[in-house]
Amino acid sequence: MLPMSPHEIDNLDTLRLRIREFARVRAWERYHTPKNLVMALSVEAAELLEPFQWLTAEQSQHLSAEQHAAVRHEIADVLIYLTRLADLLNIDLLDAAADKLALNARKYPVEKAHGNALKYSDFSDD
Amino acid sequence: MLPMSPHEIDNLDTLRLRIREFARVRAWERYHTPKNLVMALSVEAAELLEPFQWLTAEQSQHLSAEQHAAVRHEIADVLIYLTRLADLLNIDLLDAAADKLALNARKYPVEKAHGNALKYSDFSDD
Amino acid sequence: MLPMSPHEIDNLDTLRLRIREFARVRAWERYHTPKNLVMALSVEAAELLEPFQWLTAEQSQHLSAEQHAAVRHEIADVLIYLTRLADLLNIDLLDAAADKLALNARKYPVEKAHGNALKYSDFSDD
Amino acid sequence: MLPMSPHEIDNLDTLRLRIREFARVRAWERYHTPKNLVMALSVEAAELLEPFQWLTAEQSQHLSAEQHAAVRHEIADVLIYLTRLADLLNIDLLDAAADKLALNARKYPVEKAHGNALKYSDFSDD
Repeated sequence: MLPMSPHEIDNLDTLRLRIREFARVRAWERYHTPKNLVMALSVEAAELLEPFQWLTAEQSQHLSAEQHAAVRHEIADVLIYLTRLADLLNIDLLDAAADKLALNARKYPVEKAHGNALKYSDFSDD
Repeated sequence: MLPMSPHEIDNLDTLRLRIREFARVRAWERYHTPKNLVMALSVEAAELLEPFQWLTAEQSQHLSAEQHAAVRHEIADVLIYLTRLADLLNIDLLDAAADKLALNARKYPVEKAHGNALKYSDFSDD
Repeated sequence: MLPMSPHEIDNLDTLRLRIREFARVRAWERYHTPKNLVMALSVEAAELLEPFQWLTAEQSQHLSAEQHAAVRHEIADVLIYLTRLADLLNIDLLDAAADKLALNARKYPVEKAHGNALKYSDFSDD
Repeated sequence: MLPMSPHEIDNLDTLRLRIREFARVRAWERYHTPKNLVMALSVEAAELLEPFQWLTAEQSQHLSAEQHAAVRHEIADVLIYLTRLADLLNIDLLDAAADKLALNARKYPVEKAHGNALKYSDFSDD
């Protein structure tokens, strides 16, 4: 059962159910095939890129209040679509993340990976 | 303080701290500027697109066990980078998602949005 | 020397020089590092995804005049950034494409690739 | 009629026909709906992001021979999909680019745009 407070979302499972409800009451489920959702997610990830494209690394660490607010919205959009996609594919987000971090720890053991400039790989790459 | 069980991550805050620690012990923080992180996130979002690019909407709803496992890894990668980015920008993910859903509810009231084929907009678009 | 007609661009080299001039007269070169340009290119590629995200494969083949015009603009944006990026990296676009097609022909010989449902690969994949 | 030399591609129209032929002989046309092609294009654009994600702006201007070769392949992939997409939508690439540059020139007149740090816009943005 959903929490009484309409605005409060204190865990990913509540978020998942809220998003389900949001789509259900608008009869939008038919648009939410995994194929469409991964497209929508990529669109939002790129909207997250956009505010940063002409900034220097330094500037990216000192966003104005306006830039920060916009970025916060885009981050939310990515999480919303990710949660919706995971819901439809029966994937538990935290469980998947835990498994991936464990895999990455084996792939990039501290002794080998410490401080190295990584070319085409990164700390969460497959 | 981090949970005793090395593998268990039962909420986003624990995930956030685990990722911080992962990057810290490998001295990878210098690569994690917001600018670099939004790029890494877009790379992972596109790795999530790839398994679906030649599938029909129907096929996208019936992934093989192998395809599903690969998609689960990419979903985890997106969440990991999103959590890291939000951490560095002091953004609470669930809080941001709650605000965005509330904004979307005002933008797409049920009476207006019900069942409509949305062309350039969607249920979480700005 | 640039063509006399301000609007006519009949080959990629003219396009390349026009874009150079466009950036030069606005003193925008300092924003055009390869890193920034690949970000801008990804942003535009995602703006090309957006009109299609809720469409069926069928609908995507019958765009309205309005949708088609918008997609045409986004396609142009991708080409503009790609040309600019290639210019800065001294890469000849047609030459690179020719080499890649030759590589793909060896990777996907007709006998092997004919009609096959390709899962994670495609006709131009590395 | 296609040029006699199998490798030489000296203009976009030849490239367009070569790609058509490449897909035709492998019976891959059914995968090439505009929806699928924009996805494939975004996947390639992100593969172009990846080599740069942990580099500084400075490093991005001094790629090793190996990095440069990889980037050249990804640039080719983007052009190949863009050309294929434009072909299916009956869009002339250079024509579209010329129109977009003209539009951008009106949107960013030199007097107004000169040297300005652009926040959410750029020289080819809609």
